[in-house]
Amino acid sequence: MSENIETSEITIGVVGLGLMGTSIATTFLLAGHPVKAIAPIPEDMALAPDHIRHQLLHCQTSDLLSQPIDGYLSQLTISEDYAQLKGCRLVLECVIEKSDIKASVYHKIAAEVGSDTIVATNTSAIPISLLQKYIPHPERFLGIHWGEPAYLSRFLEITCGELTAMHHAEWAFNIAPYWGKEPTLLRKDIRGFVTNRLMYAIYREALTLVENGEATLEDTDKAFRYDTGSWITLMGLFRRMDFEGLRDYPTIFKNIFPQLSNREDVPPLMQRMIDKQARGIQNAKGLYNYTKEEAQRWDESFAAFNKDIYNLAKEYPADLARKKNAKTED
Amino acid sequence: MSENIETSEITIGVVGLGLMGTSIATTFLLAGHPVKAIAPIPEDMALAPDHIRHQLLHCQTSDLLSQPIDGYLSQLTISEDYAQLKGCRLVLECVIEKSDIKASVYHKIAAEVGSDTIVATNTSAIPISLLQKYIPHPERFLGIHWGEPAYLSRFLEITCGELTAMHHAEWAFNIAPYWGKEPTLLRKDIRGFVTNRLMYAIYREALTLVENGEATLEDTDKAFRYDTGSWITLMGLFRRMDFEGLRDYPTIFKNIFPQLSNREDVPPLMQRMIDKQARGIQNAKGLYNYTKEEAQRWDESFAAFNKDIYNLAKEYPADLARKKNAKTED
Repeated sequence: MSENIETSEITIGVVGLGLMGTSIATTFLLAGHPVKAIAPIPEDMALAPDHIRHQLLHCQTSDLLSQPIDGYLSQLTISEDYAQLKGCRLVLECVIEKSDIKASVYHKIAAEVGSDTIVATNTSAIPISLLQKYIPHPERFLGIHWGEPAYLSRFLEITCGELTAMHHAEWAFNIAPYWGKEPTLLRKDIRGFVTNRLMYAIYREALTLVENGEATLEDTDKAFRYDTGSWITLMGLFRRMDFEGLRDYPTIFKNIFPQLSNREDVPPLMQRMIDKQARGIQNAKGLYNYTKEEAQRWDESFAAFNKDIYNLAKEYPADLARKKNAKTED
Repeated sequence: MSENIETSEITIGVVGLGLMGTSIATTFLLAGHPVKAIAPIPEDMALAPDHIRHQLLHCQTSDLLSQPIDGYLSQLTISEDYAQLKGCRLVLECVIEKSDIKASVYHKIAAEVGSDTIVATNTSAIPISLLQKYIPHPERFLGIHWGEPAYLSRFLEITCGELTAMHHAEWAFNIAPYWGKEPTLLRKDIRGFVTNRLMYAIYREALTLVENGEATLEDTDKAFRYDTGSWITLMGLFRRMDFEGLRDYPTIFKNIFPQLSNREDVPPLMQRMIDKQARGIQNAKGLYNYTKEEAQRWDESFAAFNKDIYNLAKEYPADLARKKNAKTED
């Protein structure tokens, strides 16, 4: 945070008010921004006010509010009219992951906003460099990819397309801490961004181990929850390697890399799920078996866990070693 | 937990009293077992009592004790004499990762224990099927691999070798919850076990991304801490897929799998660390730059974080959906 930013003087637009869009709008409200929320479809217009109120209540139970809920809501305009976006410093697009729909939204945004407005997309599936072609000022276009729910996640991935001017990405990077985020700035527009790409390296190996009968779903999940889970939020990957002392890695790499899966196909285990229309928690049919009540409980647990891990992460900031004394043992 | 187990009636031996061995001994003491701790080298004999007392203090600050520290210590015998292992139901070997040294330790153990004693190794590097060859009764030999520190980690990986009798592995699996663990039972002795293997699939990809300039160390770590970290302790990998709804995976797999690294060599980035004798946190020289104080603070933070995440994980047990009501939002 190199400069002082007055969030109340910076209006932000959000286009697309599904669960993710409202969750992003809520984040901006929490940070003190006036928010112009645009509903491109009637359903969003009908449901968005309730979603946002519900999310602010969720924030309240997490002690994230510094004023009554109505104070935040007074900063919010929900509308179907793109003209509301005039004066926005940043407009965040969160509509469905279809390029043609996004392209039409970008034209409506561009018709209203001024020459200093940054337009950003929440896509996690479409390359920024591709979407960038659909907007008149591609140098002011970038990716801002949020965790879920946006207001209770510190994750924020800022991605440049080929034509993005770096100072716009840096503007987003510098303001992100005011939104409660620990942002990353990806200078190259790689497919799958960073997290997705790394997670798919695990998914490839994990699905293969299970298919080969070398591990069960349950055991793999337990190992991840209780081994990786016991340090990942504190350290990430490379800090972990430093923590482990580095020395043994080359030998282990030489032993294990040649045994890892290099497959490019869709693992049959996953294809079978698709074929039987399994949607996991959403329809209580997935890799695991669920009753409807169990699926519901996982959903509730995630909301509760999210609060807890968000608050825990706050105790261990990213620049912990430089900025503050760590908690110490007696 | 199919039967009631009286831990105070089950004596357990631990051979090798370095940091890991003492940490495992402490876990058994916490669980109520009498513990015979054998120090194969004089240094262990000298340092072990202090290590264990310090670890019990760490447990005390984490509210894990149900009696004064001296109560636990009264159940502990530390000795250089393998004859102390007589009457142990289980002997856990935690000496250095060298096959010849382990083989000599197994012979000393086997000379003292009875016909119902299970011998287990904490190795994470040597295949169980190989170590098994060094012991007279290989059917009673298996791997029990612990998290770090053992008394503050729910992770426990039980691995059979080719000759292990399954009922011995199941005995360990059934008693592990009394040790505060969420055990996994690996029926095949795969190289790298489950967690290591999966983590190396990420390390391979992550080191490659950084080498190619597609992501920085810092950004990769942030993304993992705040994205993956926000759900891994609750869900693991496959439950996460169910949670995300499964539907989109085949398309993403087809796009991303062919772009993942399949390398078998040691990434030069890691080799450079080895060449300059970097030992990470241990000598304040690693993938990241550290002052000695910063390295020290990471060490302290891990001890503190470990307590916090251990206690958080307790709120969300592995069988959460079946056993207890999840925490709910208002």
